[in-house]
Amino acid sequence: MKKDFRIIGFDADDTLWINEPYFHETEKQFCELLSDFYSTGIVSQELFKTEMQNLNLYGYGAKGFMLSMIETAMRISNNKVSHLTIEKVIQLGKDILNKPVVLLEGVEEVLNNLRKKRIELIVATKGDLLDQERKLAKSNIEKYFHHIEIMSDKKESDYLKLLSHLDIKPENFLMVGNSLKSDIIPVLNIGGYGIHIPYHTTWQHEKNAKVENQNNFREIEHISELIKIIEE
Amino acid sequence: MKKDFRIIGFDADDTLWINEPYFHETEKQFCELLSDFYSTGIVSQELFKTEMQNLNLYGYGAKGFMLSMIETAMRISNNKVSHLTIEKVIQLGKDILNKPVVLLEGVEEVLNNLRKKRIELIVATKGDLLDQERKLAKSNIEKYFHHIEIMSDKKESDYLKLLSHLDIKPENFLMVGNSLKSDIIPVLNIGGYGIHIPYHTTWQHEKNAKVENQNNFREIEHISELIKIIEE
Repeated sequence: MKKDFRIIGFDADDTLWINEPYFHETEKQFCELLSDFYSTGIVSQELFKTEMQNLNLYGYGAKGFMLSMIETAMRISNNKVSHLTIEKVIQLGKDILNKPVVLLEGVEEVLNNLRKKRIELIVATKGDLLDQERKLAKSNIEKYFHHIEIMSDKKESDYLKLLSHLDIKPENFLMVGNSLKSDIIPVLNIGGYGIHIPYHTTWQHEKNAKVENQNNFREIEHISELIKIIEE
Repeated sequence: MKKDFRIIGFDADDTLWINEPYFHETEKQFCELLSDFYSTGIVSQELFKTEMQNLNLYGYGAKGFMLSMIETAMRISNNKVSHLTIEKVIQLGKDILNKPVVLLEGVEEVLNNLRKKRIELIVATKGDLLDQERKLAKSNIEKYFHHIEIMSDKKESDYLKLLSHLDIKPENFLMVGNSLKSDIIPVLNIGGYGIHIPYHTTWQHEKNAKVENQNNFREIEHISELIKIIEE
């Protein structure tokens, strides 16, 4: 991989800090709350269906997730779900929003190392504006970044807009993230570079993506390997 | 008022287009749905209490409003509210998100006129990222703006960050909006200029603000008066 990147973009959730396991754990508890009605598999599947139906309207993030859980609980229980369960679902969602921000291992060392080179670092994350800002503030790593971009989606057109705003060409931009679908493929498609760091827990919606064009692309196991690639 | 503004910022909701009347109408319907339990006045008051309790966690926007309506309905009915009512509340919220964007009278003419002068126009709006982006896209006035800033809040520190990002001094910045609390006072406090255009419907949270320092401040009745002020 070439190395004259002017800007490296980092995805945040599950690239810099833990996120999906919190949603995963909440979904597990949601399925348990509804286990009188259906098995975990069915509840999970119905929740995903609701989320996909609402995605255009709600976008990504915990509040939409909460609303979709409530809607699913009422629909699949044929409105037999107890108020107590709905209350618990709201509390589960609030708990997600209040979760601590736990950095993934090695993140701060890598950012600290990269900052010493002549490369600008940015965060490019999708999700809820307030929630992502809050996580960044809690993370204590905001200081490493020249720019924070919170995006409603991560399609090719969204990256093109971002790069135009940053006044940079795709060939000088490297994106690092855990989602092939959101962080890597759209960036490769517009002529940028992508480094994929798979994470053990991935939301179903972000799965089933394949990199067709292996140019400009690398997959690594751990964020610390990034330094070697930049230096090689 | 002096006139060497380099950038004019416009609030969006109830400054460029109709917003609060939609929430107001939804709240009225919500109160009707709960009229078996309490009078409109009490339901309204309890909803506002819930919204204020959740504001730090949810931020501004329709999804937080939906969650606060559901929470209020369950609390004040002592969990006696019907599932049908909760379903209706969710639908009311979805209807807000799907509302058409109706520009306030005169807005497009003013933007068109200002664009011909050497002043950059920006939108500085708070609320939900996806929802505000969607409204801008629907509005057909995105083309008049050099920059769109969707903010999680509009405090002094948020404006300072915005102006630093735009690389402009407060004395060259004029903010136009319907909320003294969010659009005007913080901007005056950091040394910028503010023009207030009151709107007939204002959310309780945005009320009860008073401009102490009348320097750099004007109140007008209609956005078309802006042109005269800029030209005078």
